[in-house]
Amino acid sequence: MRLHGLNWDAKKFIQTASDKANNGEPVHGIKFDLKSTDGMARRGAITTAHGVIQTPAFMPVGTAATVKTMRPESVAETGAEIILGNTYHLMLRPGAERIASLGGLHKFMNWPGPILTDSGGFQVMSLSELRKITEDGVRFRSHIDGSYHDLTPERSIEIQHLLDSNITMVLDECTPYPATEQQATDSMRLSMRWAARSKAAFQKRDGYGLFGIVQGGVYPSLRAESAKALSDIGFDGYAVGGLAVGEGREAMFATLDVTTPELPGDRPRYLMGVGKPEDLVGAVARGVDMFDCVLPTRSGRTGQAFTRRGQVNIRNARHKDDPRPLDEECTCPACTSYSRAYLHHLASSKEVLGLMLLSWHNLHYYQQLMSGIRAAIEAGTYADFMAAFEVEYGGGDIAPLD
Amino acid sequence: MRLHGLNWDAKKFIQTASDKANNGEPVHGIKFDLKSTDGMARRGAITTAHGVIQTPAFMPVGTAATVKTMRPESVAETGAEIILGNTYHLMLRPGAERIASLGGLHKFMNWPGPILTDSGGFQVMSLSELRKITEDGVRFRSHIDGSYHDLTPERSIEIQHLLDSNITMVLDECTPYPATEQQATDSMRLSMRWAARSKAAFQKRDGYGLFGIVQGGVYPSLRAESAKALSDIGFDGYAVGGLAVGEGREAMFATLDVTTPELPGDRPRYLMGVGKPEDLVGAVARGVDMFDCVLPTRSGRTGQAFTRRGQVNIRNARHKDDPRPLDEECTCPACTSYSRAYLHHLASSKEVLGLMLLSWHNLHYYQQLMSGIRAAIEAGTYADFMAAFEVEYGGGDIAPLD
Repeated sequence: MRLHGLNWDAKKFIQTASDKANNGEPVHGIKFDLKSTDGMARRGAITTAHGVIQTPAFMPVGTAATVKTMRPESVAETGAEIILGNTYHLMLRPGAERIASLGGLHKFMNWPGPILTDSGGFQVMSLSELRKITEDGVRFRSHIDGSYHDLTPERSIEIQHLLDSNITMVLDECTPYPATEQQATDSMRLSMRWAARSKAAFQKRDGYGLFGIVQGGVYPSLRAESAKALSDIGFDGYAVGGLAVGEGREAMFATLDVTTPELPGDRPRYLMGVGKPEDLVGAVARGVDMFDCVLPTRSGRTGQAFTRRGQVNIRNARHKDDPRPLDEECTCPACTSYSRAYLHHLASSKEVLGLMLLSWHNLHYYQQLMSGIRAAIEAGTYADFMAAFEVEYGGGDIAPLD
Repeated sequence: MRLHGLNWDAKKFIQTASDKANNGEPVHGIKFDLKSTDGMARRGAITTAHGVIQTPAFMPVGTAATVKTMRPESVAETGAEIILGNTYHLMLRPGAERIASLGGLHKFMNWPGPILTDSGGFQVMSLSELRKITEDGVRFRSHIDGSYHDLTPERSIEIQHLLDSNITMVLDECTPYPATEQQATDSMRLSMRWAARSKAAFQKRDGYGLFGIVQGGVYPSLRAESAKALSDIGFDGYAVGGLAVGEGREAMFATLDVTTPELPGDRPRYLMGVGKPEDLVGAVARGVDMFDCVLPTRSGRTGQAFTRRGQVNIRNARHKDDPRPLDEECTCPACTSYSRAYLHHLASSKEVLGLMLLSWHNLHYYQQLMSGIRAAIEAGTYADFMAAFEVEYGGGDIAPLD
């Protein structure tokens, strides 16, 4: 495996399954070092078998074994240290056993760094057909070919093991929004029973870990109950699930406010599927260490750019003759080598290079944002950082040329 | 303008329009150095204001100011030294005057090397609607928005000047195939009158040149007449047009056999829109120095790979579990970092990275082929090279795994 432009030595972290036998030695999962705090905000580092992740961290989403429109070398160039893979997509195509026989997901997709995989549960509910949830798990039909599949906590853990995921997520049910308190209770408690089964099924290995997922909708007592249940089981990290599903930012932040204090302080906290830059900044202030979201790549494919000055729609005709870069301070290839006029032209012409450059820019922006967040926490100036972010990001794009 | 991975110093060759005033000094167009020959095959170099092109050369096609799915740095990494831009596409979107006001096509698309542009005539006939040819030129409706446009020899030359093209092509009518001798005669003679008008309209500049285009269908006497007419007008290079339009390889080679000997020996010869690897190898043996074709990039977007062992359809299910690279000797990113199984997965999943990697591979293959051709001509072993190519390329793909 050759990698260009990566900041780490790929070989150092690449292990084959046979390397992982511990011969009776004690097994250490993933390590979390909390370096400093600033209010609730935390600056840390997660060590896995495939490398170290500085936190707070943003994980680009590599759904089908590729971060869409990006070579993995380019993903690394943006500063990303870990990516997310989707169990649902990969189990259906090309199949977990196939990826395992080809050496695991790192090798398959040429990403030697850490990988976190979700459990598949969320996508089963949002993408598949004829899904049916029972105590045992979920039966569904593939959105690709209509074939039937069963996903249980045990199978989800097995799939993630086959993928060689560094951070495995327990199978849970993402409680829909809105849900009554009774619905949210039943759903959360099912997820807690599945979490226990996931823990039992997980095979411990050095540098690999399992995260639990807090559910409970927007009900503080349920979130507390869920956090307690997971802490009692014991995980390498704790995710907050069931948010960013329509409840709005205020309710999301309110739920984080009552949830993160209930989680063990010595383990990383991961807010799933979030989000916009302002969501990340606010969630870090509430003690979150990890994020993932399709937004930077998906938006990049629809002409939406994230910049220091907020979102810019490059398809807008105002950019047609604009020789200026998207963001004159950004060091990504889209900003250093091209004009807004060119990016507008690519988007108008539906050229693949347009998707590539905007996705790269957006991922670069997100990583720059996380880098700024980490530096501010270290410096103990996170409140100032948030205030400055709000002014600049809310200030809007530069004025059009005359 | 920043460029990564280019083999030349971008700044050295980037000129603005104001640099090009000659203040009464004699104007030198593009320079052609014929280094060695082997039979009819020629090894040379073309010097332009934006850099040197080693010949025989293959020019990737950058239709809408982008070589599809490729960053220009990556195009340069494949070994390409010149790209082709399409006048028809660029005049319609984003417009020649707009590109000129943004600093020309090199700057607009971040390609500091030489650029050749076609005249727009071929695409008008193949893509536009309601086209009408008169002695003056061609009137047509845009395939994008239905707007009316006129393309005359003078306007085509002006557009290519606005684009800052290093090698401008005369406007011609690409005679369809089949055509009667009378149709081919009338069409060719119209093209010759347009060639004279194109020459008159072309503004000479150091390091910029104008190529004539031989027409005449598959009729040897018409090809000879056309070559003579163009030589009398005098051009910086001579293209052979109206081939690869359905006449078949045998007729194409037969036409080249009677055409290239009629062209001035001290000027580059360019076979337009050709072609497959075997076409290139055979045409070089008939004295051709330059080629362009969409085949490597277009095929890359449909799962077709060109390899030393012929074409490989990566969508074929035989590759599903194959851990081997597409070509174990190829040094492109698709071959050094990925398995056939992964490339098959990307194609099955319609992932953009699949288009990117196969396009890169194909462009890399074409440039490697040209590099081998140039070395063989230099060594005086081109006949051996052709024989070895035929055996290996015709030998077919490696056997499937059991």
